[in-house]
Amino acid sequence: MQDDSPLVRRHERDGVTTLTLNRPAQFNALSEEMLEALGGELDRVADDVHVRCVVIAAEGRAFCAGHDLKQMRATPDEAYYLPVPVVARVQGIATAAGCQLVASCDLAVAARSARFAVSGINAGLFCSTPAVALSRNVARKRAMEMLFTGEFIDADQARDWGLVNRVTDDAALDDMLDALTASICAKSAVAVRTGKAMFHRQLAMPLDEAYAFAGEVMARNMMAEDAGEGIDAFIEKRPPQWRHR
Amino acid sequence: MQDDSPLVRRHERDGVTTLTLNRPAQFNALSEEMLEALGGELDRVADDVHVRCVVIAAEGRAFCAGHDLKQMRATPDEAYYLPVPVVARVQGIATAAGCQLVASCDLAVAARSARFAVSGINAGLFCSTPAVALSRNVARKRAMEMLFTGEFIDADQARDWGLVNRVTDDAALDDMLDALTASICAKSAVAVRTGKAMFHRQLAMPLDEAYAFAGEVMARNMMAEDAGEGIDAFIEKRPPQWRHR
Amino acid sequence: MQDDSPLVRRHERDGVTTLTLNRPAQFNALSEEMLEALGGELDRVADDVHVRCVVIAAEGRAFCAGHDLKQMRATPDEAYYLPVPVVARVQGIATAAGCQLVASCDLAVAARSARFAVSGINAGLFCSTPAVALSRNVARKRAMEMLFTGEFIDADQARDWGLVNRVTDDAALDDMLDALTASICAKSAVAVRTGKAMFHRQLAMPLDEAYAFAGEVMARNMMAEDAGEGIDAFIEKRPPQWRHR
Repeated sequence: MQDDSPLVRRHERDGVTTLTLNRPAQFNALSEEMLEALGGELDRVADDVHVRCVVIAAEGRAFCAGHDLKQMRATPDEAYYLPVPVVARVQGIATAAGCQLVASCDLAVAARSARFAVSGINAGLFCSTPAVALSRNVARKRAMEMLFTGEFIDADQARDWGLVNRVTDDAALDDMLDALTASICAKSAVAVRTGKAMFHRQLAMPLDEAYAFAGEVMARNMMAEDAGEGIDAFIEKRPPQWRHR
Repeated sequence: MQDDSPLVRRHERDGVTTLTLNRPAQFNALSEEMLEALGGELDRVADDVHVRCVVIAAEGRAFCAGHDLKQMRATPDEAYYLPVPVVARVQGIATAAGCQLVASCDLAVAARSARFAVSGINAGLFCSTPAVALSRNVARKRAMEMLFTGEFIDADQARDWGLVNRVTDDAALDDMLDALTASICAKSAVAVRTGKAMFHRQLAMPLDEAYAFAGEVMARNMMAEDAGEGIDAFIEKRPPQWRHR
Repeated sequence: MQDDSPLVRRHERDGVTTLTLNRPAQFNALSEEMLEALGGELDRVADDVHVRCVVIAAEGRAFCAGHDLKQMRATPDEAYYLPVPVVARVQGIATAAGCQLVASCDLAVAARSARFAVSGINAGLFCSTPAVALSRNVARKRAMEMLFTGEFIDADQARDWGLVNRVTDDAALDDMLDALTASICAKSAVAVRTGKAMFHRQLAMPLDEAYAFAGEVMARNMMAEDAGEGIDAFIEKRPPQWRHR
């Protein structure tokens, strides 16, 4: 199952939908057409109950060089609002809105070749929307250093700062990604979707409110068929058979 | 002074109250009875002006394996509301609500054997209440990785991510813990209690409000007898004699 | 251009205003007179459109030992409100309000001799206002450990925790600082000022609001002359000629 769209390729396997930015000659710069294509695919994923996990990948030597400079606009932050976890798969450069895309994904894996910058400042344009996502991923002095200097950090730095989860050699990137997505896909879809939604909502709440909300979510999650099956399986020391695969 | 309660043991020494989860055969799973016993002890501590610091420890090979799966309920987050610092002493596994307990303590020390996971997702139940505490301890992509995969991190990883403060060999754990609690107990009790309360409150405030609040707290703290003694002792280069030991 | 003020020296070069705390015999303790002098200089900087970046430095073996203990008062947090980035240049100890000063700067560079503590607790006075800044720089268990124990962390620890950006040998500190400030000064002043203001404001906002605000800021920034020049220069592969140097 491969979509023929020239700008964003879609590929589905075992519950994982991979969306691949496909303007390699332009380092996958986010033209308006590209953003529209990506947005359309994400909308489609949002409505598909069979999707368990989304990967945002990129064709070629770079992940994403940000916006087309003549077509700049604030990037929406759609990954947060998708109902399933979104994983960035990063090789080469991820700059400006490309770095924002990584930061706004739930998870990210990176090849050792990956490098990250919010480099709009070099062109007289402070990376304001990327700053929103970046400053919610890494400590504030680190975010400010990147934003004011426009300098790159490498993959290991990004992992040590919390911008990406895992780093490996470029040749092993897909194996690492597959292990991560397979781990997510092995879980109850209800529990994963419940978790994705509750995680981001509770982060924005004061502590008391967050606990009250989490308690409600947990009570509802407990009533779902999968939780009963999961607990039974755990107690009976057998693999769970989730209803919603 | 040792309490005979079978579920939570209490031990007091030099101002440090140690509460030890005591269901080692069940990896100290938090049954309703255990949570009630722990809650009762914490209430008692909250009313005792002689307590300087609380340690939450666990008997046996594991710290805490979370809830009894048949008795799941949202765990309250009492450590935040205690008037004195609470330190988790962790060996072996700390999973689900056990990991939440570590995250919601003010401080944590861990043996090298310690391992941490929010593994409810493996049983079809997203760790919602643990997510509240965990996501306020570690960077969000790291929290989400743990919550969606259910995988363990080891003690060094937990320290590098900010979930625990200090790690040492299992045999040296109590020495490390004693050094930390002794450091806290050597301080003015008024100043420590003042600080514990103000720290969590200001974290929830916008910056301007937090500074205004901190200024008020500092002014009141300055008027306490211990502050005068502390400053005099500092200037006279002698150890302070706190009024409230 | 050197100011003769005995308490805070001012030095200007290439758009960088360096304010040097100048009570080395008292480890640059912040007396009321010193705070007034520093506040006056910061006000002057705030009104000077030619300033691109501010450095807060200190004369002698220590950066800043906090307040004069007999003149304690809550320190205002002026660095956040300055219109340009503020960089702390730290050698030796930075304690209590001195540590707060580092935490409340946008960026910080440190010599290997630098050591950081919020040590008021040793004198019976919890570092409440420093806690506000510190807890917004480093993970909360780390902040609490420092606040409750009063113990020092060294320069590498401070960098690993996000309290400072870069560390080097004492002899190389000014070179490292110059590289950082030169990088900032090479950018469009409009973009840097825009970014400084938006960064702190958006941090305090819920995510949706932060993105909406960032989008507006970016649209306004795009209309500034420098952004057009920056993008043209990028496309034409030549250095930009900023209007506002």
